Amino acid sequence: VTTLGSTYPIGGGEIARGIPAPPWHFGSDVIQVDFQVAPATLAAFLPPGIEASAIEPGRVQIAFCSVAAVGDAADQSVVAPGDANFEECLVKLRARAGDLEGWYVSHSWVTNDVSLQRGIVQGFPKRIGRVALTRFDTVQARAGGRWKGARLGGVLEAPDGLRLSVVHECAERPAPTDAPLPFLLCRRFPSLFAPLDRSVDEIVSPIIENAVEVDVWSGPAHVAASGAADAMPLFEPLDRPWSRSLRTAFTITGARLVNRNG
Amino acid sequence: VTTLGSTYPIGGGEIARGIPAPPWHFGSDVIQVDFQVAPATLAAFLPPGIEASAIEPGRVQIAFCSVAAVGDAADQSVVAPGDANFEECLVKLRARAGDLEGWYVSHSWVTNDVSLQRGIVQGFPKRIGRVALTRFDTVQARAGGRWKGARLGGVLEAPDGLRLSVVHECAERPAPTDAPLPFLLCRRFPSLFAPLDRSVDEIVSPIIENAVEVDVWSGPAHVAASGAADAMPLFEPLDRPWSRSLRTAFTITGARLVNRNG
Amino acid sequence: VTTLGSTYPIGGGEIARGIPAPPWHFGSDVIQVDFQVAPATLAAFLPPGIEASAIEPGRVQIAFCSVAAVGDAADQSVVAPGDANFEECLVKLRARAGDLEGWYVSHSWVTNDVSLQRGIVQGFPKRIGRVALTRFDTVQARAGGRWKGARLGGVLEAPDGLRLSVVHECAERPAPTDAPLPFLLCRRFPSLFAPLDRSVDEIVSPIIENAVEVDVWSGPAHVAASGAADAMPLFEPLDRPWSRSLRTAFTITGARLVNRNG
Amino acid sequence: VTTLGSTYPIGGGEIARGIPAPPWHFGSDVIQVDFQVAPATLAAFLPPGIEASAIEPGRVQIAFCSVAAVGDAADQSVVAPGDANFEECLVKLRARAGDLEGWYVSHSWVTNDVSLQRGIVQGFPKRIGRVALTRFDTVQARAGGRWKGARLGGVLEAPDGLRLSVVHECAERPAPTDAPLPFLLCRRFPSLFAPLDRSVDEIVSPIIENAVEVDVWSGPAHVAASGAADAMPLFEPLDRPWSRSLRTAFTITGARLVNRNG
Repeated sequence: VTTLGSTYPIGGGEIARGIPAPPWHFGSDVIQVDFQVAPATLAAFLPPGIEASAIEPGRVQIAFCSVAAVGDAADQSVVAPGDANFEECLVKLRARAGDLEGWYVSHSWVTNDVSLQRGIVQGFPKRIGRVALTRFDTVQARAGGRWKGARLGGVLEAPDGLRLSVVHECAERPAPTDAPLPFLLCRRFPSLFAPLDRSVDEIVSPIIENAVEVDVWSGPAHVAASGAADAMPLFEPLDRPWSRSLRTAFTITGARLVNRNG
Repeated sequence: VTTLGSTYPIGGGEIARGIPAPPWHFGSDVIQVDFQVAPATLAAFLPPGIEASAIEPGRVQIAFCSVAAVGDAADQSVVAPGDANFEECLVKLRARAGDLEGWYVSHSWVTNDVSLQRGIVQGFPKRIGRVALTRFDTVQARAGGRWKGARLGGVLEAPDGLRLSVVHECAERPAPTDAPLPFLLCRRFPSLFAPLDRSVDEIVSPIIENAVEVDVWSGPAHVAASGAADAMPLFEPLDRPWSRSLRTAFTITGARLVNRNG
Repeated sequence: VTTLGSTYPIGGGEIARGIPAPPWHFGSDVIQVDFQVAPATLAAFLPPGIEASAIEPGRVQIAFCSVAAVGDAADQSVVAPGDANFEECLVKLRARAGDLEGWYVSHSWVTNDVSLQRGIVQGFPKRIGRVALTRFDTVQARAGGRWKGARLGGVLEAPDGLRLSVVHECAERPAPTDAPLPFLLCRRFPSLFAPLDRSVDEIVSPIIENAVEVDVWSGPAHVAASGAADAMPLFEPLDRPWSRSLRTAFTITGARLVNRNG
Repeated sequence: VTTLGSTYPIGGGEIARGIPAPPWHFGSDVIQVDFQVAPATLAAFLPPGIEASAIEPGRVQIAFCSVAAVGDAADQSVVAPGDANFEECLVKLRARAGDLEGWYVSHSWVTNDVSLQRGIVQGFPKRIGRVALTRFDTVQARAGGRWKGARLGGVLEAPDGLRLSVVHECAERPAPTDAPLPFLLCRRFPSLFAPLDRSVDEIVSPIIENAVEVDVWSGPAHVAASGAADAMPLFEPLDRPWSRSLRTAFTITGARLVNRNG
């Protein structure tokens, strides 16, 4: 087991724990809901070093994902499926870092602490939350599946009281996206020594390889949110939300440093 | 909303809660592992009214399932996917009630309290546990999926300390089972009034309709258990375990009364 | 192990599982918040056999509890503290069954399936939810504890999207309640056989012995709710909520049958 | 809200999320079980930069804790008790970094992701696990509490299959510990850029202020472990385990850099 990049120390013997170094291989069933908010609303959620998109300054995307993800070691999905499988809800804001247009991830909730820790290493601001979405595959049509007219839902219950739900309708079968926009992430790890500078404070973009999208549906969508959470202003669409569902596979092999703060 | 069969009271208005009456529609990805234990070992787990099978008196089946299940009301899997979707680990013992050969369910653990309550109403002795299994469907072959030579796993962590895991290998593509054996369940609901008789104490068998099995694989399997739990003797195979994986859909419309105790 | 009253079958040997028969011994730290709603609002949540209180027809109480509960068997809190300890949020409506004035429990959420099942046997309409309340005892005053002016909170996140929170202030030290009102519960266990009658449909009242209240504080309170849940109308106080916090111990030894429906 | 030391980025507005900078205030009910293993067994779990203790080279301590912890912001335990309260199981190994004798924390499991993230920032190798311990305070003596002869238990179920349980007996009332040994932690945050060096790789020791221990009991103990986890060799005592239970409060104000690797 290589321990380059691992989060936890290893003993003098053969023991390795924590999140292994990349590559990390992901398979995911995804519901994406896109809509517009006021650019100033969105901009209030951007950190230093990330600016409003020059192209789509008020675009928000909510993604609900049912994911299986593993490292390079064999067998994780067989012997530890509870570590491999999780659900995720992501809030993505169209933004840019210098000239690099992409998706800044302002919020993410996952159901599994392996995903949480792998995300924090990369700059995804993850928390554990309750996330569920309609199954993409089931022989029982009443309980899930996708076909013309099918509806799927995603529901998040976050620890700060936010409840976010989406409904996606399968109306059309568009082509897969050629080249999804990159993620723009704020990777931070604080110092604990006075004065409290940050040990790590970087804008990074994950390097994503072998990305495929298959089995895409698109159609109208609905977004609803309740609670007194900070993020509420992001969930008030000014237009009619549009959505896609798809299955995807990709591998994250590392990250590109976009900017180092400070 | 019909409230016949519902577990909870309804108000004078339009409010209904709890588990609705059947029918209940299930879609499930299943890994089944079959093996033999000593007939006396198995018989020690049978309740009054259930006897050793005359045909296969020591056969045990462990089933790991990833399930979507809904009632007859529309939309549950869309607006409440967290109530519809769950994982389950079942321990099934070959047995009979009089002349009716079937599977007595001695243990079941689920990840969701809707499944827990729907199970208790039927006589499945359910508890909440941690259950995970390899995904059947993913575009990312490293993180799941089934093909010749693929291996899948299931892992249970039960509240009494039992940890049960199975590995299933996809070696062959057998035909689906024509007519699975019925379940034999002990449906109990105790009196709380002295003397403490039981209000309900029945041997029942769920009525299962429209059952289909598709996409079956079979192959060798491995079973491992640890902990000091009561059920441990059931997880020491005397032969080489054999396993199947499959997708299934079925509807439970009620139950047949096999025997009423007392 | 006596198995009278147990919910699950036992084997021919020494094996017993599920919820044991009463007595059940409870220790609980409780925050109670009382307020008024319109009597018609409350009455809409009452089931057949339970009527509006003749005395306080619109009174609602929300209780947040941190509980340790065990059966009569020794050692459960030592060897299985995860089964003994749980948090609970109860919604209690002032009501009567015939001449018996008491608290009808319309909703309850708990964090543990032992409590869930013990509750269902008694007629508490329980579901698993996320429940947390400020600790009553800690050497760290910033993180909990009760003294004049201290504030404590309780937060529920229910699976149907209801988020309910209360804040309780420790202002006064009143005497303990002499004789709390009895619970009025609807104990139901449905038939699964056509026609779908109910196997059990009773109004019952738990028999509570050795009840003590100690260390009572009272003071003003605040209630907030969000989400689109059915229960929302119950959480709109017409007056200023008042609250108590206290520690309690009691034993449930069975139940009294108040009325059998049908 | 100061954001120095916070793990997550903040928006251009007033929004701050993630773990705030220290100080962090802890209140904890603790069961500690101490025993000896072979020094070579322990040493196999030490990382580079941490060596065997010169004084007690084979001493292991398992700690089960019920914790309330908050940052400096007011009200977290009132409005977000689910973020403040958690249970923890720690494995501590006697070790040293140069001349500094202390406790190296080789494993930690917690029930809450706020604790997880606050721990990772400090170098505690935390994962989410199921942890429960007998309540220290309850009016119901059958369900917890401490007195001469009382027994308390702690149970961990870890995601890798480890089940660890302890039983502590309250036999004596010793004086509180004057000055607990410091923690020695390995704080790591990996680079994601090739070549995969580590962005942060430090041996640190948290700065703990205002530490108090009260209400100490001590007595014999029992340790049991099952599962196929890496950590199993640490849980085979060579002597008779001894244990303490106590309540503690302390504040972590930062960390001292002991050594920077590489």
